[in-house]
Amino acid sequence: MNEGKDAMVPLDVPRGARKEYIDRYSALTAGRGRLMLFAGDQKIEHLHADFHGEGISPDDADPEHLFRIADRSKIGAFATQFGLIARYGEDYRNVPYVVKLNSKTNLVKTLQAEPLSGTLWSVDDVAALRAESDLNILGVGYTFYIGSEHEAIMLREAAQVVHQAHHYGLPAILWAYARGRAVPVEKDPPVIAGAAGVAACLGADFAKVNYPDGPDAPERLKEVVAAAGRTKVICSGGGRMEVEAFLRRLHQQIHVSGTSGSATGRNIHQKSLEEAVRFSNAVYAVTVEDASVRDAMSIYWGDLGA
Amino acid sequence: MNEGKDAMVPLDVPRGARKEYIDRYSALTAGRGRLMLFAGDQKIEHLHADFHGEGISPDDADPEHLFRIADRSKIGAFATQFGLIARYGEDYRNVPYVVKLNSKTNLVKTLQAEPLSGTLWSVDDVAALRAESDLNILGVGYTFYIGSEHEAIMLREAAQVVHQAHHYGLPAILWAYARGRAVPVEKDPPVIAGAAGVAACLGADFAKVNYPDGPDAPERLKEVVAAAGRTKVICSGGGRMEVEAFLRRLHQQIHVSGTSGSATGRNIHQKSLEEAVRFSNAVYAVTVEDASVRDAMSIYWGDLGA
Amino acid sequence: MNEGKDAMVPLDVPRGARKEYIDRYSALTAGRGRLMLFAGDQKIEHLHADFHGEGISPDDADPEHLFRIADRSKIGAFATQFGLIARYGEDYRNVPYVVKLNSKTNLVKTLQAEPLSGTLWSVDDVAALRAESDLNILGVGYTFYIGSEHEAIMLREAAQVVHQAHHYGLPAILWAYARGRAVPVEKDPPVIAGAAGVAACLGADFAKVNYPDGPDAPERLKEVVAAAGRTKVICSGGGRMEVEAFLRRLHQQIHVSGTSGSATGRNIHQKSLEEAVRFSNAVYAVTVEDASVRDAMSIYWGDLGA
Amino acid sequence: MNEGKDAMVPLDVPRGARKEYIDRYSALTAGRGRLMLFAGDQKIEHLHADFHGEGISPDDADPEHLFRIADRSKIGAFATQFGLIARYGEDYRNVPYVVKLNSKTNLVKTLQAEPLSGTLWSVDDVAALRAESDLNILGVGYTFYIGSEHEAIMLREAAQVVHQAHHYGLPAILWAYARGRAVPVEKDPPVIAGAAGVAACLGADFAKVNYPDGPDAPERLKEVVAAAGRTKVICSGGGRMEVEAFLRRLHQQIHVSGTSGSATGRNIHQKSLEEAVRFSNAVYAVTVEDASVRDAMSIYWGDLGA
Amino acid sequence: MNEGKDAMVPLDVPRGARKEYIDRYSALTAGRGRLMLFAGDQKIEHLHADFHGEGISPDDADPEHLFRIADRSKIGAFATQFGLIARYGEDYRNVPYVVKLNSKTNLVKTLQAEPLSGTLWSVDDVAALRAESDLNILGVGYTFYIGSEHEAIMLREAAQVVHQAHHYGLPAILWAYARGRAVPVEKDPPVIAGAAGVAACLGADFAKVNYPDGPDAPERLKEVVAAAGRTKVICSGGGRMEVEAFLRRLHQQIHVSGTSGSATGRNIHQKSLEEAVRFSNAVYAVTVEDASVRDAMSIYWGDLGA
Repeated sequence: MNEGKDAMVPLDVPRGARKEYIDRYSALTAGRGRLMLFAGDQKIEHLHADFHGEGISPDDADPEHLFRIADRSKIGAFATQFGLIARYGEDYRNVPYVVKLNSKTNLVKTLQAEPLSGTLWSVDDVAALRAESDLNILGVGYTFYIGSEHEAIMLREAAQVVHQAHHYGLPAILWAYARGRAVPVEKDPPVIAGAAGVAACLGADFAKVNYPDGPDAPERLKEVVAAAGRTKVICSGGGRMEVEAFLRRLHQQIHVSGTSGSATGRNIHQKSLEEAVRFSNAVYAVTVEDASVRDAMSIYWGDLGA
Repeated sequence: MNEGKDAMVPLDVPRGARKEYIDRYSALTAGRGRLMLFAGDQKIEHLHADFHGEGISPDDADPEHLFRIADRSKIGAFATQFGLIARYGEDYRNVPYVVKLNSKTNLVKTLQAEPLSGTLWSVDDVAALRAESDLNILGVGYTFYIGSEHEAIMLREAAQVVHQAHHYGLPAILWAYARGRAVPVEKDPPVIAGAAGVAACLGADFAKVNYPDGPDAPERLKEVVAAAGRTKVICSGGGRMEVEAFLRRLHQQIHVSGTSGSATGRNIHQKSLEEAVRFSNAVYAVTVEDASVRDAMSIYWGDLGA
Repeated sequence: MNEGKDAMVPLDVPRGARKEYIDRYSALTAGRGRLMLFAGDQKIEHLHADFHGEGISPDDADPEHLFRIADRSKIGAFATQFGLIARYGEDYRNVPYVVKLNSKTNLVKTLQAEPLSGTLWSVDDVAALRAESDLNILGVGYTFYIGSEHEAIMLREAAQVVHQAHHYGLPAILWAYARGRAVPVEKDPPVIAGAAGVAACLGADFAKVNYPDGPDAPERLKEVVAAAGRTKVICSGGGRMEVEAFLRRLHQQIHVSGTSGSATGRNIHQKSLEEAVRFSNAVYAVTVEDASVRDAMSIYWGDLGA
Repeated sequence: MNEGKDAMVPLDVPRGARKEYIDRYSALTAGRGRLMLFAGDQKIEHLHADFHGEGISPDDADPEHLFRIADRSKIGAFATQFGLIARYGEDYRNVPYVVKLNSKTNLVKTLQAEPLSGTLWSVDDVAALRAESDLNILGVGYTFYIGSEHEAIMLREAAQVVHQAHHYGLPAILWAYARGRAVPVEKDPPVIAGAAGVAACLGADFAKVNYPDGPDAPERLKEVVAAAGRTKVICSGGGRMEVEAFLRRLHQQIHVSGTSGSATGRNIHQKSLEEAVRFSNAVYAVTVEDASVRDAMSIYWGDLGA
Repeated sequence: MNEGKDAMVPLDVPRGARKEYIDRYSALTAGRGRLMLFAGDQKIEHLHADFHGEGISPDDADPEHLFRIADRSKIGAFATQFGLIARYGEDYRNVPYVVKLNSKTNLVKTLQAEPLSGTLWSVDDVAALRAESDLNILGVGYTFYIGSEHEAIMLREAAQVVHQAHHYGLPAILWAYARGRAVPVEKDPPVIAGAAGVAACLGADFAKVNYPDGPDAPERLKEVVAAAGRTKVICSGGGRMEVEAFLRRLHQQIHVSGTSGSATGRNIHQKSLEEAVRFSNAVYAVTVEDASVRDAMSIYWGDLGA
């Protein structure tokens, strides 16, 4: 554990905000340099499809499900939109939040128009909410798409979100993706490494990236981790997977590829509350607590309490 | 009646504005958690066609007709554009207003260009008007279209309208629609549920949605209500309908699907003043006062006074 | 004469500016509720073609011609661009001005690109000019085109021009037109009524509209007047017409259709100074002074002095 | 000589800046109402082609050539970009400057994309430079293209450049052109007159226009001068011409067509320093000093010293 | 050596910032008027491809490699993005930095969409970082593309970046390129000269240009140097080259063509740390210290220490 190194404070965090930055970074990573992010921005990103249908627990029909999970399970932070946090936060004061500042729906496909996801709230809005509400807001998040014809807009917003977050002593997570007609294969390893490198240049504390396609994914993910340098890489959980396979892949990401965390959304919240909590704790154990897959499965099966 | 829960104050309402927010929310919903909205923004949205022609009362030719109805009937609020409110408000001081901040005409069709409805006035403009005029302004409204190529502009404006309204202790209603070449069926239930979920993520107090198409509409509307969580769903009245069928559908929305109100426009104002007032009162009775369809029909027929 | 009603002050005029608003409104309408507008923004709108050629007086070649006419004839106000007013105003201090804040040329046709006319000066610029120069500026003007793909830009600017003008106690006139590929017939009566209704929603004090096409124009124009409600309708003079026919049509607009004024440009300034003054006075007599066409023709023929 | 009239101060020049405006206007026109402008913005407008090649003096390869000419010859003002003035101004303090605020290259042709030339520096930047450096800056310049689909952007910037320049007591020159797919013949006389009229409406002190095509150019240019009213017209020098023909045409512009100056670029700076100075002085003599073509030719041939 | 001339201070550097400007300019050029720039913005510009693959040292996989090289070798400045500097700067306080303010990826090709590279951070952000961190930031950089349909955006940003940098006493380097469908041959000498001239007009202290194509490149580069005037030209290193050929070409640029420096990226950082340091020192020796190619090769081979 190299706390000092992990919480190395970027120089655009003003002196007066360094302690807050370090405290929040430590809280996000439990002082172990690894972030377990419960990513819950899908109500805009994927609309209704992620919350209703075959194989999805009826619990997931209510947006409060996400807050209940976040409240009862071990997580580094729960990332969701400002509007939901403002609405539910009073009843979920223990939850550590990352405020997601942009989102787009998936209705317009890339073949119709190049992707553009614009900021919905400013970092100033977040800082004011935090000051007024005393919610436990630990960071902010923003998605960019390199390879979009609107790339210039998103790179600028991403750079400014990070810089302004640092101004307030808030760590920033960039969802770093490649998308657009110019990007034939979004999960091509060099493309992912490129996106991670861009996140590093933009000053991100964490880059949330896609898991690479292909049989040599663990190896190629190392390249991604290297390309991001001191910007810590966390992998998206992606679509629904069988639990053990999910945890095995996650374990590999952390211990083989060297990622610094995980970002899991649908694989958590599409389960019933009780199962989601157990699964979330299992993900946390692998991500942060160096648990083996076997131990994590035990947590999932409920042999070990939270 | 669960007043406390219904008026739960979002955390981006500053402490100093919480009482005003609660008072306005209660006024909008008569302390019963249900909003009967008289929606009158069609002079821009639908131009002349909604106010003149066969089956439309000659009374509707004059925009003041809307204010006369709002003045004489029971409503939660009358939603219309800032310009009309500034012009007629002095003579209609009893009317509770929701200021509609954006609108577009229906001249350019979706096949020609993707829909874009931009803010015409800011929430600051509304707050200044309220302070200067002491009009009974209870909230603001904004329409967004997910699935439009201009979605990013509207989602940002919607998020900011809500957030700034809350800053002033004003509830915000989002007209939550899906429209664009990417949206083949605007009234497809999952699309409506998706739009309602987006409104929730943007922090809306109320989401005004389309009534779903299809025979299982009441059931599917439940899904929409669930997807919106603590953001309250109200259904659009839609095009002209026969009175009893309208009230029956409304009763079903409230008591079967669990919506928290109604938004009625053309079905009210295309009638003569006297009939419009009776009909509006009937809609109010079903929406807010738990009246049966039979009781509401009696109100409409004038057996029971307002 | 119902002065009180005509000068009803919109509520977005601050208390401290109400007296100025009423004074200017009365000055524009000679306390009779009718505005005779000498519309002179064609040097941008129509370029050289309106000022030179067969049937156009050589006097019209010099832009000062417009100021000379405005100075010597009876008018409610002379509307032209800020730049010309700043240049000539010192020598024409008696002229009542309406500052036209946007304009576009007619070079790019609708089939090539959708119309967009953007603000060139702000209402703040006008207020500063008025304060500094003490010119007799009575209002501001702005053109919008519903049915253009750029409608959202113009509706926002129009709404803000009106609102900001009211802030300074200045009445606002909206040139309310429909134009774009989506508008096959610009002078279709329902389209004109729609544009007038939009102007009302945007808070305009006056809506300058096209005269409808068709044999039942006087009747259909009534609909337009009704649709605008308390926003007063004035009709464009349109292209060159024979004098008596022009005055007859104008008389009909005022006394049959119920418009509250007239906006005449080319029919005035394409005449020689002396004839233009006589004609302008005749237009004024019909518009404001309840003169008969016969009386107005006498003024035009010079039998009656100004 | 009608100094009073020529320096008539537009009303958007604040009282406190009127003296400065008059002084600068007089300096620009040598108190004779005529401006000889040495126009040197071609390093962006025409790139390398104007400064290197057959028939162009090797002196012209160095941008300092322009400053040397401006320093040693009689001119009303030297117009060039802010960046060059900031770089060379210290060594050329005697030169009277007009700061050109926008420019575009000629790489993208009109058939590929509609022309857009945007402000590069603000009038505030110019005022700050003047205050800080005490350079002899007498005015600002801006190019607009009517007939471009981006016309709305440029008309707004042009209007604001003029208005803000006046705020600081600085005269403003508009390069008034028509260009775009909608403009088949840029040098058609009515098109030029239209552009000059637009410049007048935008408040320009001087409009720099193209010399009309056609045999009746001198006559048609009168129309242009008339259309601009109190906005003074100066003609572009255009492409390379034989000296005597150039001066003859210029003499005709001033004394037949009634223009108030000249704008010469390539015809000056493509000559060697020594020849350029003689030629510039000849242009000045015709433009400002009422010299005959014969006298001007003597100056050019060096018979008469500066 | 003409220090006075080289550090001639542009007039938009305020008096109070002149000393800082001169100090930084001297530091950038070692008081000899020549800048050796280690250009390291490729993690956005070229993504992963420049940092991984055949012929690239594994050292280059980690972004810190760039900082290690910059720390241990002789350079005028290391140019890279703000985000990386903020992240690594604390550990590399000796490095002289140029903050690159814009960047785009190479995913979207010119045939798909015209190039646009927008500012990611403002000069104010850089000034605040410098003040807060006391890092050795000597200047800022910005890339523009003439010939792009988005040229107007980039020329404006470039002009403002230079002007604002000067406000803070910071020299500014413009990456001056031509790119777009309108530019068939980016490395055509007149096109390069044009871009350099534009950089001069925009006020750049240094213009980083492409090395011309063709056998007469050294001669044509002279033209470029002349066209830029007092704006100093430095040549891009371009793609990977054999060491001696690289140094020979560089020597020619400095001593034949008269450039004032070099900008080298991939040719440095794709080597192992130790080789990169030796090569960087060799480049520095040729660029700044008037070393012969033979001497520089000795440095590269390690015969001479740094």
